[in-house]
Amino acid sequence: MKSDLDALMEKHDLDALLVIGAATHNPMMHYFTGDVHMGDGALIRPRGAAPTLFYNPMERDEAARTGHQTRNLVEYDLPGLTKEHGGDAIQAQAARYARMLADCGVEKGRVGLFGKVEIGAPFAIFNALAQMAPQYEIVGQSGRTLLAEAMETKEDDEAERIRRMGRITAEVVGRVRAYLQSHTAKDGVLLNGDGAPVTVGDVKTLINSAALELGVENPHGTIFAIGRDAGVPHSTGNPEDALELGKTIVFDIFLQEPGGGYHYDFTRTWCLGYAPPEAQKLYDDVKAVFDDLMGGLEANAPFKALQERTCDLFEAQGHATIRQDPSIQEGYVHSVGHGLGLNIHEQPFSREDSLLRPGVVVTIEPGLYYPSRSMGVRIEDTVYVRPDGGIEVLADFPHDLVVPIEEA
Amino acid sequence: MKSDLDALMEKHDLDALLVIGAATHNPMMHYFTGDVHMGDGALIRPRGAAPTLFYNPMERDEAARTGHQTRNLVEYDLPGLTKEHGGDAIQAQAARYARMLADCGVEKGRVGLFGKVEIGAPFAIFNALAQMAPQYEIVGQSGRTLLAEAMETKEDDEAERIRRMGRITAEVVGRVRAYLQSHTAKDGVLLNGDGAPVTVGDVKTLINSAALELGVENPHGTIFAIGRDAGVPHSTGNPEDALELGKTIVFDIFLQEPGGGYHYDFTRTWCLGYAPPEAQKLYDDVKAVFDDLMGGLEANAPFKALQERTCDLFEAQGHATIRQDPSIQEGYVHSVGHGLGLNIHEQPFSREDSLLRPGVVVTIEPGLYYPSRSMGVRIEDTVYVRPDGGIEVLADFPHDLVVPIEEA
Repeated sequence: MKSDLDALMEKHDLDALLVIGAATHNPMMHYFTGDVHMGDGALIRPRGAAPTLFYNPMERDEAARTGHQTRNLVEYDLPGLTKEHGGDAIQAQAARYARMLADCGVEKGRVGLFGKVEIGAPFAIFNALAQMAPQYEIVGQSGRTLLAEAMETKEDDEAERIRRMGRITAEVVGRVRAYLQSHTAKDGVLLNGDGAPVTVGDVKTLINSAALELGVENPHGTIFAIGRDAGVPHSTGNPEDALELGKTIVFDIFLQEPGGGYHYDFTRTWCLGYAPPEAQKLYDDVKAVFDDLMGGLEANAPFKALQERTCDLFEAQGHATIRQDPSIQEGYVHSVGHGLGLNIHEQPFSREDSLLRPGVVVTIEPGLYYPSRSMGVRIEDTVYVRPDGGIEVLADFPHDLVVPIEEA
Repeated sequence: MKSDLDALMEKHDLDALLVIGAATHNPMMHYFTGDVHMGDGALIRPRGAAPTLFYNPMERDEAARTGHQTRNLVEYDLPGLTKEHGGDAIQAQAARYARMLADCGVEKGRVGLFGKVEIGAPFAIFNALAQMAPQYEIVGQSGRTLLAEAMETKEDDEAERIRRMGRITAEVVGRVRAYLQSHTAKDGVLLNGDGAPVTVGDVKTLINSAALELGVENPHGTIFAIGRDAGVPHSTGNPEDALELGKTIVFDIFLQEPGGGYHYDFTRTWCLGYAPPEAQKLYDDVKAVFDDLMGGLEANAPFKALQERTCDLFEAQGHATIRQDPSIQEGYVHSVGHGLGLNIHEQPFSREDSLLRPGVVVTIEPGLYYPSRSMGVRIEDTVYVRPDGGIEVLADFPHDLVVPIEEA
């Protein structure tokens, strides 16, 4: 949690954090700034001290809205520094960062580098800084970084924001189901009033306009994949595809607060009208595993144990799993869950050694995929391990496979 | 242009390009892949050879849609490499990149690094690669990088995509104007049917739903800033602000193709109902400069000369300019234009030495800002310098200051 930052900085042996880039769609910066419209900037947080936000002059009002101490980047006279460094923009920017660090009281030590940015220039700039100011070690962390670890457990206000996104997601999914059921089918295809097939594209338009109306964003798109596409976990679905009855539809929706805030992640698998026995069997297998996992969730359990358990159960059902062969494309081909927050995928990950500590928000999403048989099933809910150790599903929505449809 | 890549790689002394990250909202990757839904990946393009796209197995269909040669990252056995490197994920990933480069026939040389990513891990990984495989020099370019230079001039199909975004922008702006004019004012405030003021937030909702309906995205938000906010160039406007008559409204809209494609950039300044003499004067000053600049546009002219010309003209009118003092916040406080394409701001920039070469798409956007007087004016069109040297404004829309409004 954010309140653990100093302890985490000590644990990770970092004397300062340096976060660069925009405030929007940049999770590590957004974590500090909240939802403000800053196209570029930098934030320095020394260990044991409040952060300072550096802004470009045109964005001073937005910077001020964050409530942090702020400094105008113009004060650092980049043109002057560039002259001083013989026109070398990279050296000049490195020198500017050295001054910014010093102005925040960071005189030396290990500086953790964060932020989602176009990598080329900062790669050169921070290597130049390390050369020019060897009192600083610029540390790029991988995997469970300090900020990833902080973000892994949510404060109450963060959990509430994700819960709210869950309610909105359930509302959108309910509207999609109602929309589908407001149509009738003929010859096994869902039809519009004008007799043309309802398409995947129609559904996605509905999702996006519902998201807009409800004040959330859908920056990563939605998976609404039918038939063969449902058999490929990350196929998003072909907008031209007609909605045929009796095919599995994997509907995976991951909405986000505006400007790059908190997410929700949610999947249902539907068959319109009826489920052929083969699809029903696949669904039953996944649902049995899903129910087993959800029933066994416990605070502080190893997340990886759920992945093992999932593989055990699917293998016992006769399905191939990624544990047996990481390159498989049929059977159980992915991991069972991940944390989410400002990132749609973040710590903890079920494929890594991590605990379901109080405060985590994770997905539970077993699935089976058979592209050769044109079907796939995934069921996913997002759960919050509350500070008291209780397990809370953050959005309620039925898991039923079949969406009843009237025949015309 | 993309067709210049080999020549540019020679000029920049780069033997290969390495682009990392997602295909969506990652301009450098999108430049090669087009609009596909790849959450992560890498692309290597050796000098003189076709690129290879490396994908995660769940995204194989999306990778295939790009038409490039593709390779599954699973083939590189990261778990095995991690074991080999004693559990060090950074070393393992560096070793993987070394193998990927070798598999693309890049045995040594200067590798340009590109892509919008969370910087920490790749910062460490590519420094580890440089240590581990000193036959490679990993080059992070700044400013007018190789890809920035390639992207600076547009192929015909790129210009057509921007032109289409211009038409959509003009349609959206027209709808906003019609919406405003469909209301009446009372006591100097635009009112809804229910007697409540029309707000900035109402206008933004309309913009977003029009964008959605027209199949484009608005990931950076819209500036619709009235009164004091209009005086701060990048204030986006307060959603709660009522639309008062006679105040300057800076309306700057920058829509984007879905998934992180091409942009358009467009600004008008409006006064609802009437323009007070002070606002009219400010508008007339900006419009005179705008007309002068647009009338003088010529292929291959230095872009910076337009910035100088803008400062000359504004200073002659008695306004302070950023040329006189880079820290000013009243007067002419920014630069006159920038290229746009997959990035909302890209090469060429009017603050740098660059030419308006055939193929560039640039904004022309003089403006004056007086936050202390609660007003600001900016006028912006986007122009294409055609291959034949002709100048084409990519979206037609009247520049009028006053939007007539009926009094109730």
